[in-house]
Amino acid sequence: MDKILVIHGPNLNLLGQREEDIYGKMTLGEINAQLEALAQKNNMALHIVQSNHEGEIVDVIGQSSKDDFKAILINPAAFTHTSVAVRDAIAAVPIPAVEVHLSNIYAREDFRHTSHIAPVCHGQISGFGPQSYILGLQALGNLIKNS
Amino acid sequence: MDKILVIHGPNLNLLGQREEDIYGKMTLGEINAQLEALAQKNNMALHIVQSNHEGEIVDVIGQSSKDDFKAILINPAAFTHTSVAVRDAIAAVPIPAVEVHLSNIYAREDFRHTSHIAPVCHGQISGFGPQSYILGLQALGNLIKNS
Amino acid sequence: MDKILVIHGPNLNLLGQREEDIYGKMTLGEINAQLEALAQKNNMALHIVQSNHEGEIVDVIGQSSKDDFKAILINPAAFTHTSVAVRDAIAAVPIPAVEVHLSNIYAREDFRHTSHIAPVCHGQISGFGPQSYILGLQALGNLIKNS
Amino acid sequence: MDKILVIHGPNLNLLGQREEDIYGKMTLGEINAQLEALAQKNNMALHIVQSNHEGEIVDVIGQSSKDDFKAILINPAAFTHTSVAVRDAIAAVPIPAVEVHLSNIYAREDFRHTSHIAPVCHGQISGFGPQSYILGLQALGNLIKNS
Amino acid sequence: MDKILVIHGPNLNLLGQREEDIYGKMTLGEINAQLEALAQKNNMALHIVQSNHEGEIVDVIGQSSKDDFKAILINPAAFTHTSVAVRDAIAAVPIPAVEVHLSNIYAREDFRHTSHIAPVCHGQISGFGPQSYILGLQALGNLIKNS
Amino acid sequence: MDKILVIHGPNLNLLGQREEDIYGKMTLGEINAQLEALAQKNNMALHIVQSNHEGEIVDVIGQSSKDDFKAILINPAAFTHTSVAVRDAIAAVPIPAVEVHLSNIYAREDFRHTSHIAPVCHGQISGFGPQSYILGLQALGNLIKNS
Amino acid sequence: MDKILVIHGPNLNLLGQREEDIYGKMTLGEINAQLEALAQKNNMALHIVQSNHEGEIVDVIGQSSKDDFKAILINPAAFTHTSVAVRDAIAAVPIPAVEVHLSNIYAREDFRHTSHIAPVCHGQISGFGPQSYILGLQALGNLIKNS
Amino acid sequence: MDKILVIHGPNLNLLGQREEDIYGKMTLGEINAQLEALAQKNNMALHIVQSNHEGEIVDVIGQSSKDDFKAILINPAAFTHTSVAVRDAIAAVPIPAVEVHLSNIYAREDFRHTSHIAPVCHGQISGFGPQSYILGLQALGNLIKNS
Amino acid sequence: MDKILVIHGPNLNLLGQREEDIYGKMTLGEINAQLEALAQKNNMALHIVQSNHEGEIVDVIGQSSKDDFKAILINPAAFTHTSVAVRDAIAAVPIPAVEVHLSNIYAREDFRHTSHIAPVCHGQISGFGPQSYILGLQALGNLIKNS
Amino acid sequence: MDKILVIHGPNLNLLGQREEDIYGKMTLGEINAQLEALAQKNNMALHIVQSNHEGEIVDVIGQSSKDDFKAILINPAAFTHTSVAVRDAIAAVPIPAVEVHLSNIYAREDFRHTSHIAPVCHGQISGFGPQSYILGLQALGNLIKNS
Amino acid sequence: MDKILVIHGPNLNLLGQREEDIYGKMTLGEINAQLEALAQKNNMALHIVQSNHEGEIVDVIGQSSKDDFKAILINPAAFTHTSVAVRDAIAAVPIPAVEVHLSNIYAREDFRHTSHIAPVCHGQISGFGPQSYILGLQALGNLIKNS
Amino acid sequence: MDKILVIHGPNLNLLGQREEDIYGKMTLGEINAQLEALAQKNNMALHIVQSNHEGEIVDVIGQSSKDDFKAILINPAAFTHTSVAVRDAIAAVPIPAVEVHLSNIYAREDFRHTSHIAPVCHGQISGFGPQSYILGLQALGNLIKNS
Repeated sequence: MDKILVIHGPNLNLLGQREEDIYGKMTLGEINAQLEALAQKNNMALHIVQSNHEGEIVDVIGQSSKDDFKAILINPAAFTHTSVAVRDAIAAVPIPAVEVHLSNIYAREDFRHTSHIAPVCHGQISGFGPQSYILGLQALGNLIKNS
Repeated sequence: MDKILVIHGPNLNLLGQREEDIYGKMTLGEINAQLEALAQKNNMALHIVQSNHEGEIVDVIGQSSKDDFKAILINPAAFTHTSVAVRDAIAAVPIPAVEVHLSNIYAREDFRHTSHIAPVCHGQISGFGPQSYILGLQALGNLIKNS
Repeated sequence: MDKILVIHGPNLNLLGQREEDIYGKMTLGEINAQLEALAQKNNMALHIVQSNHEGEIVDVIGQSSKDDFKAILINPAAFTHTSVAVRDAIAAVPIPAVEVHLSNIYAREDFRHTSHIAPVCHGQISGFGPQSYILGLQALGNLIKNS
Repeated sequence: MDKILVIHGPNLNLLGQREEDIYGKMTLGEINAQLEALAQKNNMALHIVQSNHEGEIVDVIGQSSKDDFKAILINPAAFTHTSVAVRDAIAAVPIPAVEVHLSNIYAREDFRHTSHIAPVCHGQISGFGPQSYILGLQALGNLIKNS
Repeated sequence: MDKILVIHGPNLNLLGQREEDIYGKMTLGEINAQLEALAQKNNMALHIVQSNHEGEIVDVIGQSSKDDFKAILINPAAFTHTSVAVRDAIAAVPIPAVEVHLSNIYAREDFRHTSHIAPVCHGQISGFGPQSYILGLQALGNLIKNS
Repeated sequence: MDKILVIHGPNLNLLGQREEDIYGKMTLGEINAQLEALAQKNNMALHIVQSNHEGEIVDVIGQSSKDDFKAILINPAAFTHTSVAVRDAIAAVPIPAVEVHLSNIYAREDFRHTSHIAPVCHGQISGFGPQSYILGLQALGNLIKNS
Repeated sequence: MDKILVIHGPNLNLLGQREEDIYGKMTLGEINAQLEALAQKNNMALHIVQSNHEGEIVDVIGQSSKDDFKAILINPAAFTHTSVAVRDAIAAVPIPAVEVHLSNIYAREDFRHTSHIAPVCHGQISGFGPQSYILGLQALGNLIKNS
Repeated sequence: MDKILVIHGPNLNLLGQREEDIYGKMTLGEINAQLEALAQKNNMALHIVQSNHEGEIVDVIGQSSKDDFKAILINPAAFTHTSVAVRDAIAAVPIPAVEVHLSNIYAREDFRHTSHIAPVCHGQISGFGPQSYILGLQALGNLIKNS
Repeated sequence: MDKILVIHGPNLNLLGQREEDIYGKMTLGEINAQLEALAQKNNMALHIVQSNHEGEIVDVIGQSSKDDFKAILINPAAFTHTSVAVRDAIAAVPIPAVEVHLSNIYAREDFRHTSHIAPVCHGQISGFGPQSYILGLQALGNLIKNS
Repeated sequence: MDKILVIHGPNLNLLGQREEDIYGKMTLGEINAQLEALAQKNNMALHIVQSNHEGEIVDVIGQSSKDDFKAILINPAAFTHTSVAVRDAIAAVPIPAVEVHLSNIYAREDFRHTSHIAPVCHGQISGFGPQSYILGLQALGNLIKNS
Repeated sequence: MDKILVIHGPNLNLLGQREEDIYGKMTLGEINAQLEALAQKNNMALHIVQSNHEGEIVDVIGQSSKDDFKAILINPAAFTHTSVAVRDAIAAVPIPAVEVHLSNIYAREDFRHTSHIAPVCHGQISGFGPQSYILGLQALGNLIKNS
Repeated sequence: MDKILVIHGPNLNLLGQREEDIYGKMTLGEINAQLEALAQKNNMALHIVQSNHEGEIVDVIGQSSKDDFKAILINPAAFTHTSVAVRDAIAAVPIPAVEVHLSNIYAREDFRHTSHIAPVCHGQISGFGPQSYILGLQALGNLIKNS
């Protein structure tokens, strides 16, 4: 079974109750359940972390190759635009990462159009709500298969 | 059967022989074959257009709602960064669009980090090679189902 | 009879069905009919072109002095912000041009505030819906009379 | 009879003697006479103000809805590029305004390409010399009719 | 009794009838009455000036130390973003000033995020509607007490 | 009793011993005592948090509506200029927030003139030393009363 | 006798009592007396205006050629950086102008490094305190002689 | 015989009649004749294309390696500054390209100082009128010989 | 014995296994051992902290003067470019700090050329690999001796 | 007798034969003769240097206080915009300097609007042709008298 | 025989041993020999200067019309991007100049894309290695013939 | 014995008498003596050059590999921010260089934050006064040992 590290960035714990017009009605728990279901079908094991702490996210990424993860699925949320530390962490570990966003960040405020994270990821998926995660996990499955 | 308009922007006719380190070895014909296979499984009919002419792409998008397309899957390629006309065309028709890119445009030259197209699309998928199209078509299938 | 070249840029063929809150309900055919009526009253003959192709617009402008047009009335639409070729074409022919816009481009997105075309035109009229064309044609009539 | 407020910004009192290559030979009095003639034909009454004082222009605009003006025709001249106060005044009153310029401001110095006023006006007409005013008054007549 | 100079910048005379969603329903007279009431309670005497003329505001500030004012409460409105003269006037007199705004200027257009006035004031209060003035007057009372 | 969440950002624990010319001599304990005194008079209960950890501040804001806080008083300190996560947290909860600063951030280094937080707050108060908090709490009291 | 128009911009009425470290101890009256003495020696007659009102300065410049002034000596003060109207007024009259500044504007805040006025003046003198005026008047005397 | 693809960009069909002070009096036909003469002397065969259509230029470049061209000589004219598609086409084919300009683009408007095309060409020649083409063809001859 | 606080910023725990071409092969443990050896020779005691948490670094710096540290040696890593909080912490404590970097940050991506930390440090050393730390500790020794 | 160092920057040796419309017809020898005459009248001794070598100008300035010069009169010409070394030299010596320019640098190309030298000079005089030097020497005389 | 001034800017003396991947293997001596050979064939006499000193290059250009040179061929190397003095020297003499570069400066670092020299030259040739000089000399020959 | 080239840029000859608050009291002679002492201990021979002439510095660097220097220690002073020629010289020779600064350039004016030299050096040391040189020489010693 391929182990995948799934990271939810800051404020994603509030999904379902937070600005529903932007982020939708589904809670993080429901998203995680969908991801788990898909993972099971594809013989993957997910390790899911949500944190509002940049340092915790850097910690878990830095630890990821020791923990034998095959890939990282990350929604960096607000850290997308402000965290060089998360960027450096992803660049530091020899594991492919995929960046996902619930909302279409290119249709929002200017400061959300720039990602510190994207240049060190394999690819980026933005704007499909919870389906962004589903597509991201499929993309990772494919990357692992072809690596 | 849901009809989907698939648009390949400029120079994508050269895939497979063009800068393989960036764009990969698969030809456009092979990508289209993969898309057709997936479409068939999902009861979709694809209308596929490749053009190096901005005007032709604007024409076909402007015509799309009359042609009863349910959604648009577009890799605008170079027009991503230069064409307001393609942007305005997508905004002008009441059909959801998804933007895809073979390469991770955020890991390339600065001028490729800005998309005129993304703000008027439902979402964007970038960096997964031919699988970007596959993921984009899946995303569209979901959008149509939920609309 | 003074011959006038009237150019409608990309996506204007969709008028009446496209983002009505921005562009209004009148179709391009109806606008052209209004223009023809005014032209007839002022003893002008209109040659009307709509194209989504930058190259066609450049072609017809470049040909305009040979075709003995006295003036150009142009709504460059999206090409306003992206086409140096249309700008150079207008600068290349010894015929006065007037730029018109249906919407007030200065009340929209930032990228619509800059016109490549305006510096080589005689003047610009923006924001009056179909009446922008009417005013533009009157302005041209005056220019021709005084030249 | 529809009452129209006509505002001439700073230095327009010098027309006819000021930089004739840019602003032409007609004096402000002659322009006003042309406007009055057109107004009479269209059953409009003009109240014409010229001021070099931003504050006076703000005063008269702020007073305009009490004075029962139906529309404002304004050539903000130098204040186009520097006055947020005039902008805010126009935005504060529920009356459509049209901005006009004698010269083509987009063919002049860079700092003249930006208008604080345009985004709160109905439209802008630039570059036709005194005819800019005539076209602007026609545009206003149409706006009043359709409102 | 401490004499305080209260300055209302351009267009604030229109309060209550101007863009109510931004500036609220209270008139300037009502705001002044609230300020007078608070001043009386705190043994302050207010000299209140509203002007749409930058020059008048510069005049009254320049005169303020001769007039024995202990402090200045100013809502520079549009002059916030355009007037170096008001800034220089405040810097020129040895009296503490407080800048207030009805609306949250940082949640509005980009050009409203920059204040020429703030760097020479003691502090700035923005976004609380008429209460911004009340808070500003309290802040001034405190400054005078501690100076 | 209305419960209010009071948040002190990074380095504010050092008040009284840190750059006294900028931040003054009062310690955070003394500021909190003043706030508590005012709160008691106004029948408010304060929950006061100081943290140097962005994640802790995001946590406590995200939790605030569950904890039944009526409003947030926040001095984001250094996070003002760097934290999109705190911004998103405030935007995510349906509770009014007020941003305060001890120093006049507009009279300091350029990078301190931009606030990620201000656009999602009700208002901002800057430059009055410890009184900024007092004024902010008063502003919040008023907001709660009027909501 | 050559008539010279001398213009002192906003806040210069406060000289001698205003920020002495920047502007020195001499009052405007004393500067004017020095200028009058020099003028008398050179057979010039000065018309001296100080105003905090941009409009008044524009008025007097626009009137200057009718009033038969041979040259303009102007310290635009704060209007240096904000007034296109004063610039346009100087450009509109066929009289040479010289711009002077008491302080070295290039050794002060960034926004003081840009002058709207300088490009339409004959020359600029900055940084010599009251002597800037003296030098400016000498320069004008020379310009008149050589014209 | 080495086959060379020669591309003339938009509006170059107007040479000889277009802004002679910038572009000179020679027609495109005359330039082509000069190029043919030089080619013949050097045992090269030219395929010459002029187009106002970006898409046609992209088509012909994309086709160039199949057509067995040894090199490309291109004057992209207005597309120099706006076309990423032409840039990508040149980068996509394994053939050396040389960019030429009739006028010295660095002595003209600011927007003409930036070339999307230059970074993917072997070199650039600008400012020598028709001789720019002659020099470019010589440069290509040398490149082919040394490759 | 002089106590020195040594701070290693985010991801430095991964040294030796992370992008060896940029950061070298030495582990953090080995670097610390080298520093301890040098400290011992110079009669210094080191307190070494590595953290991926901005808040922890701010905490330990804020605590440093109470803990009687004589100086701070810090490699802020990614926080160099994003943390105003760390900057403010260093400015808040009356202890000299030296900033070090393993790689030459001026030879890397643009965003790494700007340091929030440098302006509040005594000096900066960049590009010498582990020796940057050694040089930094020597510099601190000298600073302490001369203070 | 007060010794004054007069420095003429690069290309000023060509005066009289160089772009006469910008720099006038007077040669450097003639300007120097005028300066010498004025110096003699004011009991000053001039040491005049012209150099096209930045290093020579830095040398002579660095040497100036040893050579007992009381002041520096400098036309840095092209070095105005490019030489930090000349700036640092002037800042390094305890002698007042005055910067002069023949042409009005603010009415020329954008890059000539910025002076590295002005912020470290006492003042700047620009635009009066050879008289700029005369005025500058007078200004220096006054500075020496008052110091 | 036409005399031509050939100028090689800084570091070009190191050709052949300096960064061969950018500048090639040919030494400056070899390039000069090629130029001399071509000159002889075309009845030109070359005066060749290489200097690392901006001042020497300015000197020799300023002297060029006295020395009866018919044209200047210059590779300004690093001075391309930093020397206004060289630019002004070329503009000061009535002799056509051509700028050449060995490498394609538009395919290198951003700061190499801007030339102070190009706007005052007749044309620019960049990217052809030593052949850039050969092409430049041919261009000059043509210019002289046609002048 | 390893030969080291030590370069002191412009104005450093004035050390000890120049702006002591920024550069300290030590003369260049004293700094050189310290460097010589350290060199002797480490079996290095120093060749020390101070020059205010960019060209001389470029000359000596270009000559350095022929002169068999093992490394370069350079304080480029003002040339740090303006000299591409010095940068290119360092890049042109196959010898490691270290850049040092007496003052902390990141705590000074904005234009001093950018170094043309740093990207081609091995590392940079800034802010430690004369000790910056000492640390730089130690760094070089280490580089030579490990190369």
